[in-house]
Amino acid sequence: MSPQTPTTVRLDEQHLARAALTYLAEPGDPVLGVLLEACDPAEVLAAIKAGTLPGAVPGGGDNPVRGRALEAALGRWRIRLPWLPGDEQVEAACRDGIRLVCPADLEWPGGLDELGPARPYALWLRGQADLRLACLHSVSMVGSRAATGYGEHVAGEIAADLGERDWTLISGGAYGIDAAVHRGALTVGGITIAVLACGVDYAYPAGHADLFADIAAHGLVISEWPPGRSPARFRFLVRNRTIAALACGTVIVEAGERSGALNTARHAAQLGKPLMAVPGPVTSAQSAGCHRIIRDWGATCVTRADDVIEMLSPLGATLTAAGAPAPTPPRRPGLGPAAATAPAPACDELDADSARVLDAVPTRGAAGTSTIAAEAGVDLDTVLRCLGLLAGSGFIERCDRGWHLRRRL
Amino acid sequence: MSPQTPTTVRLDEQHLARAALTYLAEPGDPVLGVLLEACDPAEVLAAIKAGTLPGAVPGGGDNPVRGRALEAALGRWRIRLPWLPGDEQVEAACRDGIRLVCPADLEWPGGLDELGPARPYALWLRGQADLRLACLHSVSMVGSRAATGYGEHVAGEIAADLGERDWTLISGGAYGIDAAVHRGALTVGGITIAVLACGVDYAYPAGHADLFADIAAHGLVISEWPPGRSPARFRFLVRNRTIAALACGTVIVEAGERSGALNTARHAAQLGKPLMAVPGPVTSAQSAGCHRIIRDWGATCVTRADDVIEMLSPLGATLTAAGAPAPTPPRRPGLGPAAATAPAPACDELDADSARVLDAVPTRGAAGTSTIAAEAGVDLDTVLRCLGLLAGSGFIERCDRGWHLRRRL
Repeated sequence: MSPQTPTTVRLDEQHLARAALTYLAEPGDPVLGVLLEACDPAEVLAAIKAGTLPGAVPGGGDNPVRGRALEAALGRWRIRLPWLPGDEQVEAACRDGIRLVCPADLEWPGGLDELGPARPYALWLRGQADLRLACLHSVSMVGSRAATGYGEHVAGEIAADLGERDWTLISGGAYGIDAAVHRGALTVGGITIAVLACGVDYAYPAGHADLFADIAAHGLVISEWPPGRSPARFRFLVRNRTIAALACGTVIVEAGERSGALNTARHAAQLGKPLMAVPGPVTSAQSAGCHRIIRDWGATCVTRADDVIEMLSPLGATLTAAGAPAPTPPRRPGLGPAAATAPAPACDELDADSARVLDAVPTRGAAGTSTIAAEAGVDLDTVLRCLGLLAGSGFIERCDRGWHLRRRL
Repeated sequence: MSPQTPTTVRLDEQHLARAALTYLAEPGDPVLGVLLEACDPAEVLAAIKAGTLPGAVPGGGDNPVRGRALEAALGRWRIRLPWLPGDEQVEAACRDGIRLVCPADLEWPGGLDELGPARPYALWLRGQADLRLACLHSVSMVGSRAATGYGEHVAGEIAADLGERDWTLISGGAYGIDAAVHRGALTVGGITIAVLACGVDYAYPAGHADLFADIAAHGLVISEWPPGRSPARFRFLVRNRTIAALACGTVIVEAGERSGALNTARHAAQLGKPLMAVPGPVTSAQSAGCHRIIRDWGATCVTRADDVIEMLSPLGATLTAAGAPAPTPPRRPGLGPAAATAPAPACDELDADSARVLDAVPTRGAAGTSTIAAEAGVDLDTVLRCLGLLAGSGFIERCDRGWHLRRRL
């Protein structure tokens, strides 16, 4: 229960500890997720600061938080200790409409708990809408940044129709389909939620600063990352699980064969939530991903808001004022039998750590080894291994100021 | 085994009897279908001519060929006795490349036997290709007459790609998607089959006379109706079951919400054959039927020839020269759980007899009661009941030359 008065904000120990953890660990860190299921957040934070094991580390031979895995995790979290703001600074961040919502809070959306250990440690919010209530009757709708006019038109129309019928539209705030979804909802006075892969005060893309302000004024801009944190490619993939988990179902409007939207679709299917896709011309590469998940993943083909509502009504029916929904025929589950053939996420062929380290090398200029490790959220052993591999593969080069990119802008 | 020398054609008693039955009864007549499962065709023909019951009518309380149903059937067949050509005339029809294929012939396609009593009595063929061989490795592809440029383009591309890979393309010879399918196959030298709802020598639509000649030269123009028979609306719906039954699977390319192509799709689903549909823009009414059968009937979303072949390869694999097909993941059946919600066929709200009688009233001028009964293939009692209903509903009017249309061109 976070007090939200803009001028003076006091957070209790639990909120302060979880806020601090969002500064130290990347969301989705499997070790921290398991730890937080067993230990008190304040105790975990104190142990990280002290460089010791938390007192209540769960035992068992298969437990991933024992031994070397825990030591490596402590390493990657402690390397960010210099980034950790004081409690006053955390409280100072909670002004200008920025709020912190934690799992014990009434406003915490239940859908996130389905993520298990991958559940966000906390969420940073910009906007006054009640997150839990908004998500009870919500649709995630995402798609390609390089959308076509057709895709943006259809996304905006369906979003507006859903918004008019009091469905919350959740999307990722990107150019293309995401923006069309947010704008479609705003046009009809609907509630929309932008789930960012950077701090809620960080306008990325910069051209969406005004859009995010509009969304915060009528809905919510939310993030697992603390204020001020910049976006990175791997953060978008981690963020996508939250987009899928918050909503009653997910709709893909346009997605190329390797679009990140398919990563969100996969999360929705893995969570057992209804997965839908809007078809398009088979001559359009931007619809190829939609057609594939309809064909191979069992996604339901939807063409308008009515189709989406029909898929979701059994879940959200208790919240509609308009009485019971019409009975629907039995349906195949969102996760089709061929879901195991889902492709790798839309990132390159590097291992996850190396991809993160590569993202942490600055686009212009150079950065030192420990700076890159902190930015990527990996320990020193890992960063050294990855930097060596990236240099050997020709992605980066060592220079007198550290490391710089070779084959990027 | 019909001799096919163009100058002298001799048909045996079985072929002559089945040929005659195609003149007397509409295809799909349930009484004749059941009779032919139990009785010799020549015996049935003789009984019709004599106005008596066939000697070997199957017994049993539920048998639809007993009592009044059989009497009514005899009435509607006998009313066409004046249409029955002599044996010499039937043999004369079997010239200029027209052939007759009957169920006992080697060339009879096995898929038709899955229709049970609704199996065609015989097929009239124009063209030299072997019907059974052509159908072993075949796809039915049908769609809207009022197709869009998009639909015709996609239909032609997929048909050409399938034709290049030795798949026979089966369609209905209509304007729009059907024509694009036939032409796509012809372009690459593939075999294509036009299944008409009129005699194989009857060019309907007239603008396709040259197309049918091309199809007959490289593939087959086939029909259940005898040479010279004109098309009628109800015949297209009856014809559609043959299109679905001949092929290994059916693809719908464009179909409005009430398109006749959905009738073909329903037949494919009822036969348990793979049903596929090509998506399109959700803003296009011509793709609405495709999206609906993907969503509600479990039709598979296909976007290119490879998708179609993947669906059909387990059925046609023994005929491909290129070795065993790649293993495919388990699939949902073509007939989805919601197939019971399939809509009524795309005809108006009249009962079947009345719709046939209405179709039999000439577009221009008028016709007498017995002429209309013969054209519709119903007995006199039925035609009188239907004409009364149609006149009462304002569709037709009585005049001194019989009956004429009121609300049609």
